[in-house]
Amino acid sequence: MMAEIITIGDEILIGQIVDTNSAWMAQELNKIGIGVAQITSISDTPVHLVNAIDDAQLRADVIIITGGLGPTKDDRTKKVLAEYFNAELVTHQPTLDHVTDFFKKRGLGVNQLNKDQALVPECCEVLHNPSGTAPGMWFEHNGKIVISMPGVPFEMKGIMQDAVLSRLKDKNGGGAIVHKTVHTIGIPESILAEKLEDWEDALPEFIHLAYLPNPGQIRLRFSAFGNDEAQLKKSVELEIEKLKTIIPEAIFGYDNDTLAGVVGKMLMDKKATVATAESCTGGQIAHSITSMPGSSGWFKGSVVAYSNNVKAGVLNVSDDDIDKYGAVSEQVVKQMAGGVRKLTKADYSVATSGVAGPDGGTDEKPVGTVWIAVASPDEIIAKKFTFSNNRERNIIRSSQTALNMLRLVLEKK
Amino acid sequence: MMAEIITIGDEILIGQIVDTNSAWMAQELNKIGIGVAQITSISDTPVHLVNAIDDAQLRADVIIITGGLGPTKDDRTKKVLAEYFNAELVTHQPTLDHVTDFFKKRGLGVNQLNKDQALVPECCEVLHNPSGTAPGMWFEHNGKIVISMPGVPFEMKGIMQDAVLSRLKDKNGGGAIVHKTVHTIGIPESILAEKLEDWEDALPEFIHLAYLPNPGQIRLRFSAFGNDEAQLKKSVELEIEKLKTIIPEAIFGYDNDTLAGVVGKMLMDKKATVATAESCTGGQIAHSITSMPGSSGWFKGSVVAYSNNVKAGVLNVSDDDIDKYGAVSEQVVKQMAGGVRKLTKADYSVATSGVAGPDGGTDEKPVGTVWIAVASPDEIIAKKFTFSNNRERNIIRSSQTALNMLRLVLEKK
Repeated sequence: MMAEIITIGDEILIGQIVDTNSAWMAQELNKIGIGVAQITSISDTPVHLVNAIDDAQLRADVIIITGGLGPTKDDRTKKVLAEYFNAELVTHQPTLDHVTDFFKKRGLGVNQLNKDQALVPECCEVLHNPSGTAPGMWFEHNGKIVISMPGVPFEMKGIMQDAVLSRLKDKNGGGAIVHKTVHTIGIPESILAEKLEDWEDALPEFIHLAYLPNPGQIRLRFSAFGNDEAQLKKSVELEIEKLKTIIPEAIFGYDNDTLAGVVGKMLMDKKATVATAESCTGGQIAHSITSMPGSSGWFKGSVVAYSNNVKAGVLNVSDDDIDKYGAVSEQVVKQMAGGVRKLTKADYSVATSGVAGPDGGTDEKPVGTVWIAVASPDEIIAKKFTFSNNRERNIIRSSQTALNMLRLVLEKK
Repeated sequence: MMAEIITIGDEILIGQIVDTNSAWMAQELNKIGIGVAQITSISDTPVHLVNAIDDAQLRADVIIITGGLGPTKDDRTKKVLAEYFNAELVTHQPTLDHVTDFFKKRGLGVNQLNKDQALVPECCEVLHNPSGTAPGMWFEHNGKIVISMPGVPFEMKGIMQDAVLSRLKDKNGGGAIVHKTVHTIGIPESILAEKLEDWEDALPEFIHLAYLPNPGQIRLRFSAFGNDEAQLKKSVELEIEKLKTIIPEAIFGYDNDTLAGVVGKMLMDKKATVATAESCTGGQIAHSITSMPGSSGWFKGSVVAYSNNVKAGVLNVSDDDIDKYGAVSEQVVKQMAGGVRKLTKADYSVATSGVAGPDGGTDEKPVGTVWIAVASPDEIIAKKFTFSNNRERNIIRSSQTALNMLRLVLEKK
């Protein structure tokens, strides 16, 4: 069974928003063995939607449409679908009750725009929207399924989880797809490809491999296609075991693992804690750590020391050393790591100090120069890196590299 | 002149990566008056690419393809394009020199995979890739332009900026599109739509309005279509002036403005500085501030106080008050704001303490309960909010709300 995703909205076509919905839906569909043939973003003009639905039916059994269901004048999907399926718009009483209740709970009254959210084409099955006021709609027509949902990500997700995925899984029956991703760090793509060439050539036909570069990382994605999910998983695991013997040091995680999550697990296993002292990364390491649920169990906190008086006054870095060596130096970054470890009573700490850009570079320390330190109960190590001339990438690469240095220290303990 | 974007790669169709390239390209094309008719994500099978190119030519004059140009086996775009345009693959010497030099600078040798990056279909014009090894390619065929570029975002951006956009602008000639976005915060979408109804109905035909919701924010996007760019801009500005009189307090910025950037500008104008003390936001406020180039001029730093001993030990919050009122309380958040202001010698500060979830909620303080404080030279104010049960959205909404509270304080001064 194949699906297609159609996202509606000029905001995607003019580049104002990035389409994150499609990636999420594709992941969920893959999990239940339904592949996605194409993702299409179109304008909210009626004729374009009609053409896109016609077109998608040539390739797919299920067409999922998001967007254009809001209460405002630029939202036209519902009317177009009613015409497409030759149906009247009628009031769906449970939805009207839900909408009224939704606003009442927030201490608000209901206006006509809100009430119109309960109008649906009479041929559809209504899909309850627990997080919003625009319901989803399920149409079956000429053996194809057409599903329409709001474009607001958490509303779409609620409807998919509650009312769409399990039904599609039942309709799909057999057919399995297994994806598994291995995260590597520290080896450039072409060198990795060379190292893996013989192993890659020997992969079985039904397993596909893809290289996916991220700043400083390469992800290796295995996709296996067949009918027996358990057997596919086993075959992929076998290949990963072989892979581990070729690049043991570079693999840090699998699938949804993140460096912060992997480091967190290592710390929890050791019942140890960490803190961060961040200059050039500006809170990004703390943010990536605290995005993990449960991180309060192993993360003490962070000092974002953007000014030298915070480095000296809060982290106890020597003013003289800042003057003598500069804020971006081995001496200062080591004192930052030591200082935050002591201040927060953490077992480990990481510290960053660098020139993220676009300003602040010198001949001696150009934009992209970053010092990173890791403090453990025994010692403080520091290393200098030269990244790029792009602020955003420098912040990400510095954060990733700091977490990876901590990972390597924790592995040795 | 219309364009279409085709992105190639199973990683998009299985939902492993979010397609950010298309949004960026669409923005840049709009700026030079070229609209995007459709964005299509397809698998890296040759037949799908051929069909997508054929299909796009029916709607567009320019077809931009990204992806499938890496050095590894899963990258097939170049071969397919050579066959599509019936051309041989030949070595492009300047690209081979660039590739060799690229690896030499990094202290690495060149392998066969790297050398193959310099092979291109002989009918294309090669577009230099300053940030990577796979060159872009420009084809002209039956009056249509087909451009192929790598999918790695910063490589694609480098080629677009250096070799694509100015040429497309020349080819486009007249035809103007003007987009302008107004950022609002604090008014729910349906209430906003009601307030704006009369004004919206009176908008001229050539100006389209769209409502784009974000967590806690609604963006209003104006799109004006015509031939005279200056005149279109003037018409949009006129409508925005009218809008300001209807919702003066809710508008905080325009286009690429962010709350952090707007607050930063206000602080710079006052020659004042800010610091943050973050519990539930975990460094996200500091991160959104330090993502702004030049923020070191007005941002002192942050203490991410994830554990109570950091709240007490570093920020000088009373241990007794933490015991008596809990960490998520008016008393504690005010002391956090006051503490970090004093510690960093900043003029202003913001502090957050809340239950981000998924754990940690109680009957009295359920997940989503957040206290936010703003300290200024005169006073410390605090406010309690009830957000959602989703960790990620709670972190974002808390950060946005804290920055907005600071904005409102700064506006009054």
